[in-house]
Amino acid sequence: MPIPSPIAWTPDHTIRILDQTLLPGAETYRDLDTVEAVAEAIRTLRVRGAPLIGIAAAMGVVVGAGKRGSGEAGKTPLEEIARACELLGATRPTAVNLHWALNRMRRRAERACAEGEALREALISEATAIWDEDRAMCDRIGELGASLIPEGSTVCTVCNAGVLATGGIGTALAPIYTSHRAGAKPHVVVPETRPLLQGSRLTAWELTQAGVPCTLIGDGMIASRLRLGDVACVIVGADRIAANGDVANKIGTYGLALAAKAHGIPFYVAAPTSTLDLATPDGAAIPIEQREASELASWQGTRTAPAGVRVWNPAFDVTPAELISGIITDKGIFRPEEICRSERPGIDRPVVN
Amino acid sequence: MPIPSPIAWTPDHTIRILDQTLLPGAETYRDLDTVEAVAEAIRTLRVRGAPLIGIAAAMGVVVGAGKRGSGEAGKTPLEEIARACELLGATRPTAVNLHWALNRMRRRAERACAEGEALREALISEATAIWDEDRAMCDRIGELGASLIPEGSTVCTVCNAGVLATGGIGTALAPIYTSHRAGAKPHVVVPETRPLLQGSRLTAWELTQAGVPCTLIGDGMIASRLRLGDVACVIVGADRIAANGDVANKIGTYGLALAAKAHGIPFYVAAPTSTLDLATPDGAAIPIEQREASELASWQGTRTAPAGVRVWNPAFDVTPAELISGIITDKGIFRPEEICRSERPGIDRPVVN
Repeated sequence: MPIPSPIAWTPDHTIRILDQTLLPGAETYRDLDTVEAVAEAIRTLRVRGAPLIGIAAAMGVVVGAGKRGSGEAGKTPLEEIARACELLGATRPTAVNLHWALNRMRRRAERACAEGEALREALISEATAIWDEDRAMCDRIGELGASLIPEGSTVCTVCNAGVLATGGIGTALAPIYTSHRAGAKPHVVVPETRPLLQGSRLTAWELTQAGVPCTLIGDGMIASRLRLGDVACVIVGADRIAANGDVANKIGTYGLALAAKAHGIPFYVAAPTSTLDLATPDGAAIPIEQREASELASWQGTRTAPAGVRVWNPAFDVTPAELISGIITDKGIFRPEEICRSERPGIDRPVVN
Repeated sequence: MPIPSPIAWTPDHTIRILDQTLLPGAETYRDLDTVEAVAEAIRTLRVRGAPLIGIAAAMGVVVGAGKRGSGEAGKTPLEEIARACELLGATRPTAVNLHWALNRMRRRAERACAEGEALREALISEATAIWDEDRAMCDRIGELGASLIPEGSTVCTVCNAGVLATGGIGTALAPIYTSHRAGAKPHVVVPETRPLLQGSRLTAWELTQAGVPCTLIGDGMIASRLRLGDVACVIVGADRIAANGDVANKIGTYGLALAAKAHGIPFYVAAPTSTLDLATPDGAAIPIEQREASELASWQGTRTAPAGVRVWNPAFDVTPAELISGIITDKGIFRPEEICRSERPGIDRPVVN
């Protein structure tokens, strides 16, 4: 699959990213060699997608810890790492993988210091492990989810939960890629996903790169498209899954779930178990990021709305558990009300539709 | 209300339009002095909105009939008018007001010729009458609809069915303007309405001009916005109402109706009775205009999707009658299943929720 990786180590373990804000027009790479640059890249969505944010933040801790794992003058290595985690953790409030990855890095750093290990090597190893594990989780989600896609059928998604959002073949798109590789000829309906057009700019781009046929639609066309009757299922990603199975994902997901329900179309969420936040009881407790008015009120510097107009621009919404047919994780496919159980080992209960 | 009129006669009865494709950035007027120019303006949405399209087409017949009501060499005046009607009638397939207005103009021309009236004066008079009647219908819709908006409440609409879409104060926006003038302080939620942004460019602009507070949202935010619980009702316009009460309107309306139903919010359609098409039995029989892929795949010449991507871009969708709480017409507020009765005189049956 010739889709460029959205993230890579440089030879000296700084971070090289594909700047996703410039797709599909330009394939531009940026090297990030300070923790501030990593935080900026996450905040401005040069790097985005809940799993990829987690990976980028973990790699950002390596950058923040400095070349010799020593950090700024006057600070201990652990203080420097704590500062990096604080800076990176404040970039985006909704995705829980970010905090999950930073916690892993912090714990690893503490253990390395306590046990006298080489700190930098330990951090590089942990960040790489987070990435490798994510890649494996994507593959497992792909295998499990592909069973839900009938041969030759059409799947609807939203935003981008593919290669560009993860360390592997994606979450929502993983079952589609797996299905495509198996010769099952899936077709994907891609809502453009305003305001930042991750659907048209990123999902349509990576599917096209991979040779998976797709059809771009406007976000307001979703209900009409589902009504045509040929969409076999909906698969979306997740930025945080609450303990009760409510799912925060890109704004528009909730409306898509309502339309799927109205047309009797199964609605699946695909996410690694690192997206599950058992400390958040339900969707109402998930913090929703509000973004700048300018994302809706202008376009590349040209105003698209009258000056001074009030704007409501949440980046995410919450889809209640009762609208979700199943959650495809690396540990199995769960009914949303059973998602808590995915944390227990050995669980792999296929959802019954 | 200091909103510029979207259409006017020039002193010699050609047409002056406000070019709506250039709003909100520039308030540019264009004079249309050939029927081809009028057809182009309708096709490219410089003039848009079902009622305004009807008015513009009627005025376009005047332009097409020529200065002395004589038309091109070798053609009779009625042949020239038939040619103008054909050209104008082919511009946009979904709005029925267009054909309704052209039929009126054709019949008036025939009567003028049969009775030896001055043709040009008769046509100017008929086009002006269509416009005047539309203005009065808007006022009546405003009066009737304002009763559905509780004081100080929030109303959600879609696209633009306001001053810029009609010969008066709008259809969907008329109850809001009437309510605003009465001091009831309505607030309007305005989805941007991709791909052509009639919500942000036109509705937010005219509401702001009129001093009506509004909040711009993305189309994918509609369901989440309705979930907040403060939206008292939804009011949208219509491009065609079938005999069974199914309504064709701007793409996105159907998804909005599903979201309104999910949250128990009344969903109203506001339209003049000229929008009712008794010859169309139901929504499935309404032709839906498919527009260019470029509307979704690029923005002001910059690609927003990969080259060659397949696009599905219908301009309208159909909201089934069962999702509609009431249709606000100039002849009363009807349940959708009773809309046929609006054609009978003396009917004015308030809807019961």
